[in-house]
Amino acid sequence: MDIQLKQYYQKKRIFVNKSLIKVLPDKLGYSQVLAESMKYSVLADGKRLRALLLIAVSEMFGLPMRKVKYAACALELIHTYSLIHDDLPCMDNDDFRRGKLTNHKRFGEAVALLAGDALLAYAFELLAKNADMLGLNSNDFSTLIATIARSIGYDGMVGGQVVDMLLSMKHEAVSRGEINKKLNFMHINKTAALISASITAGGVLAKAPKKNIKYLMEFGLKIGLAFQVVDDILDETKTAKELGKSNSDSKNKKITFPGIYGLEKSFKRAENLIHSAKNDLKVFGKRALYLNLLADYVLERSK
Amino acid sequence: MDIQLKQYYQKKRIFVNKSLIKVLPDKLGYSQVLAESMKYSVLADGKRLRALLLIAVSEMFGLPMRKVKYAACALELIHTYSLIHDDLPCMDNDDFRRGKLTNHKRFGEAVALLAGDALLAYAFELLAKNADMLGLNSNDFSTLIATIARSIGYDGMVGGQVVDMLLSMKHEAVSRGEINKKLNFMHINKTAALISASITAGGVLAKAPKKNIKYLMEFGLKIGLAFQVVDDILDETKTAKELGKSNSDSKNKKITFPGIYGLEKSFKRAENLIHSAKNDLKVFGKRALYLNLLADYVLERSK
Repeated sequence: MDIQLKQYYQKKRIFVNKSLIKVLPDKLGYSQVLAESMKYSVLADGKRLRALLLIAVSEMFGLPMRKVKYAACALELIHTYSLIHDDLPCMDNDDFRRGKLTNHKRFGEAVALLAGDALLAYAFELLAKNADMLGLNSNDFSTLIATIARSIGYDGMVGGQVVDMLLSMKHEAVSRGEINKKLNFMHINKTAALISASITAGGVLAKAPKKNIKYLMEFGLKIGLAFQVVDDILDETKTAKELGKSNSDSKNKKITFPGIYGLEKSFKRAENLIHSAKNDLKVFGKRALYLNLLADYVLERSK
Repeated sequence: MDIQLKQYYQKKRIFVNKSLIKVLPDKLGYSQVLAESMKYSVLADGKRLRALLLIAVSEMFGLPMRKVKYAACALELIHTYSLIHDDLPCMDNDDFRRGKLTNHKRFGEAVALLAGDALLAYAFELLAKNADMLGLNSNDFSTLIATIARSIGYDGMVGGQVVDMLLSMKHEAVSRGEINKKLNFMHINKTAALISASITAGGVLAKAPKKNIKYLMEFGLKIGLAFQVVDDILDETKTAKELGKSNSDSKNKKITFPGIYGLEKSFKRAENLIHSAKNDLKVFGKRALYLNLLADYVLERSK
């Protein structure tokens, strides 16, 4: 990782981790196990990429990170909720995540399910708190909530998960073109949508001009898509220990981009996406330094 | 049911059902099964009590029902999400709900889990849309989102679910006083919190004075608690066919209020709660006609 980005990332990551500890419930009386379960997964070692992207964008428009603390935390709660539910036996049935046992392996399925649900609901409370703190008008407030909600709902992350599941179950012969279309749909929805929404949210919170937000959304979709392609490359090339999670794609016989097109073509695709994403940043000039470095980093992970 | 309330209720219920059909996704391309699964549970025969309460309150403050359409739908999506997750094998493991197979029995566990997740996320999008439509200032907007989010999160519905689950698993000897405290905690969180939040949301959307909203919240908690006590009475006294759902409390050996204190004492408790709830409405005089009738109806169900 670029040294300048490394320092920047480190600082933000520590800030996000500290903020997460502060916002998570500590004592919950009769439902204490829920607090433990929520903390267990959220405070496990995470990249905090979504929070970082939101912070980088809001700082780009002059809003310091402490002013977007709650929204940054909200994104990490949402991401963690999705991992907890994704790991459940009825989904990917994974045993390891972020270097430890998955939530349901540690707390049982019911508590894991409920911890995910609680994280999702809490995320919206935190988003609202942040928007209120910045005095957003009702139009921007709505854009913020709706952008995040849509990116993780039926037309976003959950929609992508459904296709992911169907693709891995389908045994019928499907043409390569059809598979390619479905893979794209799945990746855009499952991963890129929330990453793009995180970037957009940073712009909305910082009251960035609407025409700028359009570029940010595009940039977000492209790096999000590249991120997922790289994730699939890593799942094939790294051991579970290196990843800190189970390589469940191969275990679950999932159809992935490298599985269909091979590693080289997959890498090339990620490279093209990052190249195109960085083009979207040209309009921001030097202000987009960290976003540019972050885009490079997404690609670098695959090596 | 009082004839005046019956007509009022009928009209609102039809409106809510029509609105739900309109807001739910119809065609979802590759993830079509998700749209089917969401519709399957949401459009099943439901009381629409939470939507009705929101509408009744907003009308009380002069805001017609079409102006709170999206928020009313959001509450029913949230309620349905909670039922879908609650019915899952790792939770109550129920086979029937609203007179038909539960969502996971019909679509499988993974789709049911994801449909619940999608409904929850979508609910916040709809709440935001409604608040934007009414031009709420950032403070009221935040109150709306946070009130709903909190009522269904770790300090609300999900917290109550966790205690529900622990209570039914615990075999240790606990004092009656301790059980009573836990039952109260569970009922307030699992059911009353969202009912009270629905009522509060109606007031916030209609820009009701803050001092009025305090009374509404109290009223909501009391009828919500009474509602759950009555639900437990029904679970013991009616057949599954009459209920349209499995009597899973007895099956799962759950500790319930009537199970501990008997039917008579439970009914008395619900009666006292409704009496006290109606006292909270006195400040509104005749304007609270339908809320008063609704409170009576909550109790009437137990007979």
